[in-house]
Amino acid sequence: MKLDADIALAIRLAEAAGAAIRPYFRTESGAERKPDASPVTLADRAAEEAMRRILTAEVPRDTIIGEEFGATAGTSGRSWVLDPIDGTAGFLAGRPIFGTLIALVIEGWPVLGIIDQPILGERWIGASGRPTTLNGREVRTRACRALGDATIATTGPHYFDDHDGAHFMALAARTDHRRMVMGGDCYNYAMLASGQVDLVCEANLKLHDWAALVPVVEGAGGTMCDWTGEPLHAGSSGHVLALGDPARLEDVVEALGCNH
Amino acid sequence: MKLDADIALAIRLAEAAGAAIRPYFRTESGAERKPDASPVTLADRAAEEAMRRILTAEVPRDTIIGEEFGATAGTSGRSWVLDPIDGTAGFLAGRPIFGTLIALVIEGWPVLGIIDQPILGERWIGASGRPTTLNGREVRTRACRALGDATIATTGPHYFDDHDGAHFMALAARTDHRRMVMGGDCYNYAMLASGQVDLVCEANLKLHDWAALVPVVEGAGGTMCDWTGEPLHAGSSGHVLALGDPARLEDVVEALGCNH
Repeated sequence: MKLDADIALAIRLAEAAGAAIRPYFRTESGAERKPDASPVTLADRAAEEAMRRILTAEVPRDTIIGEEFGATAGTSGRSWVLDPIDGTAGFLAGRPIFGTLIALVIEGWPVLGIIDQPILGERWIGASGRPTTLNGREVRTRACRALGDATIATTGPHYFDDHDGAHFMALAARTDHRRMVMGGDCYNYAMLASGQVDLVCEANLKLHDWAALVPVVEGAGGTMCDWTGEPLHAGSSGHVLALGDPARLEDVVEALGCNH
Repeated sequence: MKLDADIALAIRLAEAAGAAIRPYFRTESGAERKPDASPVTLADRAAEEAMRRILTAEVPRDTIIGEEFGATAGTSGRSWVLDPIDGTAGFLAGRPIFGTLIALVIEGWPVLGIIDQPILGERWIGASGRPTTLNGREVRTRACRALGDATIATTGPHYFDDHDGAHFMALAARTDHRRMVMGGDCYNYAMLASGQVDLVCEANLKLHDWAALVPVVEGAGGTMCDWTGEPLHAGSSGHVLALGDPARLEDVVEALGCNH
């Protein structure tokens, strides 16, 4: 099947990215810091280059959209969407919970996604119509009987503007906020797929930030949508919700208050 | 030397705690959640009990102060201060960056500290007058030439009240806020000791949250103090600063604005 071949290719991309990234983890010292303070590392570029080389050789007609090097248009209608290091600030802070994100998007819809954590050796794979796996074992989201029981995660309040932050706070206040966790980037969605977190809510994500997450979350039994409950498509606003238990969707969208 | 014996004992505590904790990591499902939503787990209690059993048998005259089971007064003037799982919300969210904190405090001053991450097998050991080690290898904080270059970490804004939050924001605005990271708990201090993070700023920490961090950070070349720059002592307010580069202390305290 074509999907099997695509999954095998995506795994090879993840392995190439991990090999490029690992030598750079926890190596930056104060003296080596670049004058440009932006958290873009050599690892990010090396990993995307490694993935692009493979794609260019093997599927030259497919589009490549990468966080670091932009879009290379193809003719097949298929797009590989790459974020070599999602969670660059966390990576730079030495945390082994960043991830390499690899998605195959067809006609704007993600059909295959990988979240790869190359330091811990954890790889979540999601694909349309198949159960999500972590290192080959199926994972499932967990049930969440009431919004007040939900554990919510988000990378940080500094990624919201004031308007979005007010909506987020309205939602967070309805969850079990003693369990709320900050930081984490894509790892929060992986943990949601693995049944450890109930909700993730973020704003201003780019396609490369969220495309790989959708097949992983949905193949584990969860759902992803925008802040009004609409499915995520390449043209979406980047206001992203992930729910482990789709039965809570109406409550979550109502609590966020963006659907008026 | 007595310190060597104390370090050996502390390592045995860390190993006992890790063995108690590991079976509980990533095991909670939605159905198993207790009606009490507080993030206190069986792991927390099992780990503290395991450590208390060892201390009671081996150093019965020492005081034990634990996060879960409170204080058991001794007569030696020495206190073992235990936080079996620092970062319970992160633990519950499946993140392998929580830590077991073990400190020996003498006359209110921490002289020995361990930050142990039992899932990743990472153990930072700090002791008065000795270099801090991570799994036996010396680690060092990094230089930070200017506050504007600093990477700051804090567990989350929801741990500050409005007043403390305003001071934190005043400091964060002076750092390289594109690199700011949230979440992380004790792992942020471990990363500071390892030269990955420049500043950690938190409020309302208890003695068991910070005592173990001081020898780890200071043995790596950093400094810890309260928000006015005063050394941390058992009677401190729980407003905690850690700096990788002590040369930035005056800038940081000035930016926080609590020293008037």
